[in-house]
Amino acid sequence: MNRERELIELINKHMPRSSSQLNTIFESDSEILMFQGKGLVYNIDEFSETDLLREDDPYALGWNMAAGSISDILASGGRPKFYAHSMVVRDSWTMDFVEKLAQGIAGVLKEAGAAFIGGDFGISPTWRYTGSVIGDMNGQAMLRSGAKVRDGIYLTGPIGGGNVEAALKLYGQNLLVKQLTGPWKTFFPLRIKEAELIKRYSHCCIDTSDGVFNALGIISEMSGTGFAVSSLPYVKSGLLLAKVLNLPKEMLFLGECGEYELLFTLGEEVEDEFAREAGDKKLRFHKLGQVKEQGIKSLCQKDRTFDLSTYTLRARDYADPMDYLRNVADFLAKV
Amino acid sequence: MNRERELIELINKHMPRSSSQLNTIFESDSEILMFQGKGLVYNIDEFSETDLLREDDPYALGWNMAAGSISDILASGGRPKFYAHSMVVRDSWTMDFVEKLAQGIAGVLKEAGAAFIGGDFGISPTWRYTGSVIGDMNGQAMLRSGAKVRDGIYLTGPIGGGNVEAALKLYGQNLLVKQLTGPWKTFFPLRIKEAELIKRYSHCCIDTSDGVFNALGIISEMSGTGFAVSSLPYVKSGLLLAKVLNLPKEMLFLGECGEYELLFTLGEEVEDEFAREAGDKKLRFHKLGQVKEQGIKSLCQKDRTFDLSTYTLRARDYADPMDYLRNVADFLAKV
Repeated sequence: MNRERELIELINKHMPRSSSQLNTIFESDSEILMFQGKGLVYNIDEFSETDLLREDDPYALGWNMAAGSISDILASGGRPKFYAHSMVVRDSWTMDFVEKLAQGIAGVLKEAGAAFIGGDFGISPTWRYTGSVIGDMNGQAMLRSGAKVRDGIYLTGPIGGGNVEAALKLYGQNLLVKQLTGPWKTFFPLRIKEAELIKRYSHCCIDTSDGVFNALGIISEMSGTGFAVSSLPYVKSGLLLAKVLNLPKEMLFLGECGEYELLFTLGEEVEDEFAREAGDKKLRFHKLGQVKEQGIKSLCQKDRTFDLSTYTLRARDYADPMDYLRNVADFLAKV
Repeated sequence: MNRERELIELINKHMPRSSSQLNTIFESDSEILMFQGKGLVYNIDEFSETDLLREDDPYALGWNMAAGSISDILASGGRPKFYAHSMVVRDSWTMDFVEKLAQGIAGVLKEAGAAFIGGDFGISPTWRYTGSVIGDMNGQAMLRSGAKVRDGIYLTGPIGGGNVEAALKLYGQNLLVKQLTGPWKTFFPLRIKEAELIKRYSHCCIDTSDGVFNALGIISEMSGTGFAVSSLPYVKSGLLLAKVLNLPKEMLFLGECGEYELLFTLGEEVEDEFAREAGDKKLRFHKLGQVKEQGIKSLCQKDRTFDLSTYTLRARDYADPMDYLRNVADFLAKV
């Protein structure tokens, strides 16, 4: 078990719980609670420089942090209602920068129909941001558990936006990258309409905040299952960037800076109907593959199949991201 | 207007609000909301090394951060129900340190009757902690506004615990201080029973998270009033420490590291009845003084009276706390 998980369990074991808490720890993207007889969902997410979000466009930074905070509410089947934050701005940021950052956050709240309820504020040599979201929950919640063998695995958008963002943060000074990607912007999606539809057909959903591979791993762990995915819908900018940087495109799938899409499973018996209704509503989903028996973790591509059941590399175990990337490439070359 | 307040207003002006928000910005210690037809109060508070909490006793640190996060809920008349946090631990902290920190937090939650609903977790070279509290609100909320001239001004405990904590953080290496204060511990109070009683007699309450003088200033600003206080109940350890460090004891009142007590006002017509009921319930309150006309800010002591209406010193405007303390002492010597 890694140190982070160990510390979380050490902390949680001392904490009082109540019968108003409907999910167990790790079982859902947000906490599902009964509040005065009504369903309430809650999520808190912290962002800082270690999350490798680019800072050159404050509107995009604000948008992405707020969208990232809200996506957990959507993944558990809630609707965001109230949003608070603790914002510590870097002392070198200008008024104009902070204003655009706020506009990015406000853009998400307006689109999500959530109201801002203030929070805490500070100024320091390094920035950090904590988004806190209260949502309501009508009907049944979606959990990270409950996937069944032969269920289809679906994703609300292409793979790799978050890892592209991280790569541009790490390699943005590379002249070729700079020239090629100068005007690229990544905006994490707000899958509000998609979440409404997903909830009517699925009870197993997670956001890909830590990347698609990690999301599949958590759903598998919580459900006692495995997965086989194929012909993944990589984001075009990611494929191009992987080529320029001479990195395997599978980094977009394995990398831990997620794109905040919703990953969910559908029973075979509802897949057709779901597809029909999605078509009627002009909502697009990608089928990635199928839930398999526990222990199976495979990625099948046109040319070859990767057995990922022994993959355990984690970016945070490497001081230098280059070492991590090299190790991932080595792993992929060998399996 | 200071930069922090200016930035907060710049941020807030872009943010969407909703008719479910019952207080205006700055009007209450926590946000007062209608959630699915019921009263909900919410507060988020961030702590980091700049808050000058001592770190040698992790239980006390955890207790104080959680108590600090919850006191805003009490000050607005709510009852804490759910508690989440984003905890980023310093990479040098041991498992044992983190466990004791968690036990301190858990101690507050158990005493307050709140359940822990998880949150975010990280490891970094510097620690930070964000407490997030959801409470319910039955009946009328307490605001920072609504004080009336001739109301009595009350506090739930002695003055200076937070500033003692800060002084020990700043001067803990001073040999004399070390010898004298070695075993001292500061535990911020949880004024749950007091808050229940206060709410039945008062509608104007604030916690002293930024010190007593600041709390009086905010109540005055929001209510369009002033204040006169006298014979303040300084905490004994603070008086001793002030003597040892050769600092004016008024630092305990003016300093901005608060003791998280509840400061509230009572109409003249209910003061006697309140005192009687407090006595019956064995709850202790200190009367600090009286609400006065706008513009009056005075501190009266046995020997002399300070006119604080022109006092504008703020610790955060000084890079070196010594400069700040010197300036405060100068100010007090002149008025």
